[in-house]
Formats: sequence, C-alpha cells, structure tokens
Amino acid sequence: MNKVEICFAPELFEYYRDDNAVVVIVDVLRATTSICAAFVNGVNKIIPVATVEEAIALKNNGYIVASEKDGVKRDFADFGNSPHHFTNENVGGKDLVYCTTNGTRTIHKAVGAKGIAIGSFPNLNAVSEWVINQNRDVIILCAGWKGKFNLEDSLFAGALAEKLLENSAYEADSDAVVASLDLWSLAKKDLPEYIKKVSQYTRLHNNGNGDSIAHCLVIDCIDVVPVFENNELKVMN
Amino acid sequence: MNKVEICFAPELFEYYRDDNAVVVIVDVLRATTSICAAFVNGVNKIIPVATVEEAIALKNNGYIVASEKDGVKRDFADFGNSPHHFTNENVGGKDLVYCTTNGTRTIHKAVGAKGIAIGSFPNLNAVSEWVINQNRDVIILCAGWKGKFNLEDSLFAGALAEKLLENSAYEADSDAVVASLDLWSLAKKDLPEYIKKVSQYTRLHNNGNGDSIAHCLVIDCIDVVPVFENNELKVMN
Repeated sequence: MNKVEICFAPELFEYYRDDNAVVVIVDVLRATTSICAAFVNGVNKIIPVATVEEAIALKNNGYIVASEKDGVKRDFADFGNSPHHFTNENVGGKDLVYCTTNGTRTIHKAVGAKGIAIGSFPNLNAVSEWVINQNRDVIILCAGWKGKFNLEDSLFAGALAEKLLENSAYEADSDAVVASLDLWSLAKKDLPEYIKKVSQYTRLHNNGNGDSIAHCLVIDCIDVVPVFENNELKVMN
Repeated sequence: MNKVEICFAPELFEYYRDDNAVVVIVDVLRATTSICAAFVNGVNKIIPVATVEEAIALKNNGYIVASEKDGVKRDFADFGNSPHHFTNENVGGKDLVYCTTNGTRTIHKAVGAKGIAIGSFPNLNAVSEWVINQNRDVIILCAGWKGKFNLEDSLFAGALAEKLLENSAYEADSDAVVASLDLWSLAKKDLPEYIKKVSQYTRLHNNGNGDSIAHCLVIDCIDVVPVFENNELKVMN
C-alpha cells in the first residue's frame, strides 16, 4: 500500500522527507499554476532558481526571467508570476528562468526524492495520474508563505489526496491528510467563494493581481505534468 | 485590535515569533492537559525540562519526575504523562519535573514572549480569560508531533480562537486561524467521535493509554491557568 502524506511548509520538510517517495510541489497562488500554464503555452523548459542573484545572472546570460517578490514583478524581470504572462508569444519554444517568493525554493527542498512534479488545480487529474503511475508513497509539499501555513495549498493537497485515496493502492498516513481532506470538503462546495478567506486572496487583490485568481482555481483544464530533474522543469513526452 | 495567530508546530515558531505577544502552549494529548490536572490536584510547581538528561539529574537531586517517550513512561521516571497519574496523593504540595516527547520543548521555544500559559480543553475558558486579561496579540503554539502537524492541537487552537474572536478586541490574523476554526467547526459537533481520526488516538490506544483520552476532551471542567516564568510553571493566585 502506498502512503499519502502532506507537508504544510517547506521548513518542515526535513521531518517528512522520504527519499523513496515522490513529491508533488504545490503553490497554487500562483507559482505552480503559472508553471503549468507556461508548459501549456509551449515553454521549452523552466529553470527554477532560489535566489534573485541567480535570476539576475541568468538574465545577463540571455535568458528570459519571471520573478516577483510578494506578488509584485521585480524590476529586472521580463514577467511576474501571473499565469496570463506565460502566453505562447512570451514563452513559446523558450527556456524560462523562474524565481518567486515561496514556490521555487520549495522545489529545491524536495531534491533527493524519487520524482518531483508540479501540482495545481488546472492539472489536478493529470498530476494524480502521474503519482499513481509512479506507484510509490507520495508527499504533497505545500509552499506555504514565508514559513507559515497557507490555506490554498492545503486545499489543493486535500483535493489531490482525495483523488489518490479513491485508488485502492493508496492510504492516508497522517493528521495533515485528515485535516486537508476535511478543509477541502468544506471548500469544494464553492471554491471561488471559500478562497476569499485566504490571506493570499487579499494580498493579490491589494497588489493588482486579483484577476489572476480565477484562473488558478479552474480544475482539470490542462493535461501537463511538469517534472523537475537535473535542475530544470520539463514536460515528459 | 489584538491579533490571534496559530502556529502548527514549534519548528515553525521562528516565523511566527512576536515578543510583544503572549503565547498559549497546546499539547492536548496529553502534556498540557496533564499539567492542568496536576495543578488542580495541588502540585506546587512544575519544572519542564527539554532533555532526559536534565530530568535524570533532577531525579537524582530528589525531585519527583514525570517523563515519557512516545506515550510510554520512561523507566527512571515516577510517572508517565497521563492526567490520572497526577493525583493529589502523587503530586500534592510537591515540585514536579516534567519531560515529554513534544510538550515541554514547545514551552521552551516560546521563551521571550510577554507571557506563556498552558492551554487544554479542560481549562479552555480559563485560558481564554487569561489571554483577554493580557490584552495583547496572542500566538497559540501547537506542540505537533516530532515536527509534524497534529490535528488535536489544531482543534483546540480553533476552539480557543473561536472564543477569543467572540471578544471584539480580537481579530484573526492568518490562514492557520481560518483553517483551525473550520476544523473545529467540524469536530465540535462530536469531539469524542472526531478525535478517533487523529494519529495520537491510535498511538495512545496502541500503548495502553487510550483510557486517558476522554479526560483530555472534557471542556471547561477546571479553572486553573498554569503560567511559565523563570523556568517553572506555577498557577498565579
């Protein structure tokens, strides 16, 4: 039986780490949603970097760069972190460097796992199928917010756990799974309404990015699963 | 307006720390419940220690010691961590050294706050009044389980947050509060039934301590608020 576990913050990942498991990275508002959008729109690969210094160095080497801090595009970057920045015109066929507040450093925390994939509401079903194909324990790793718990990633974790637990090869492994399933059971009745309770909803509205939220909540509209290997994200063919 | 914040694990407390706030320590199954029981039964003071070595040293200096690992009494200790160990006969008028898996080291994490109190379902109302009397921001700090999220402490955090937010001087500050309130709203309909979903329920039953759980879920049956100052817990008169 494969176990489903959920870690609410990358800062706790050392207590959850299991190098025989696969990891699904979750930062639904908005890094992992935007990464999925970029692949749908034809980006060749994405290089997530954990520091601004690395992003600037790669920008100076000719890469296009998406980078934001606290939901606002950094001055040196080509794009911020809204899914609608990653159009085919902007990213199609290109290699994109990506640096955000919480999402990219969370990806790097998971290095060492048997597989690392990107999860978001738009690719919920696709990423659950990816997990099931791996046939291993899975840790759903939420990006959180600067070391703190965030609700939207936990909701997605509950949605993914629910889907996996419908498969008889998976069982819940912890209190975090129980909590996420219960929170998701409340939220899924009306996700756009429930999401108004989360801090990031207010934060995004306050910095002019509120219109990107609806896109991040559309479930199963895309069919890609970006996977992190050799320091880059790619979609396997 | 005073803010209510909840931290789900002591390992994340550095991201929540605010030395102008007061902190309520929560380890409802069972350290903080047992500490409250000990004071109701006349213990003079409790010295929480973070390591077994300290507990043994104080035992050799003549103190009575309560200590367990993973829910089982350690051989050298006088008692384990069940509330029913702390009878007036066992602890009345005495100074007790206390060392548990998660609870005591969580207390030490909070040192530096403007006040540190012990919360449990039995003293829920008493500790909420203590918080309101402090008239400051409050962080409810859950002991968790070895760095992982635990559900029962989050439920208590939701219960305490709900009580504080009924007071117009308090407002919620974060996603952790929203999540805890929602989880509590599900659990409070039938707490003894809901608690069967938590890992620690199974763990305590598996090591023969299942009969102590019911005591830990009785709300507002005692009126003491143990407070941590100068490395010891006392009840103020």
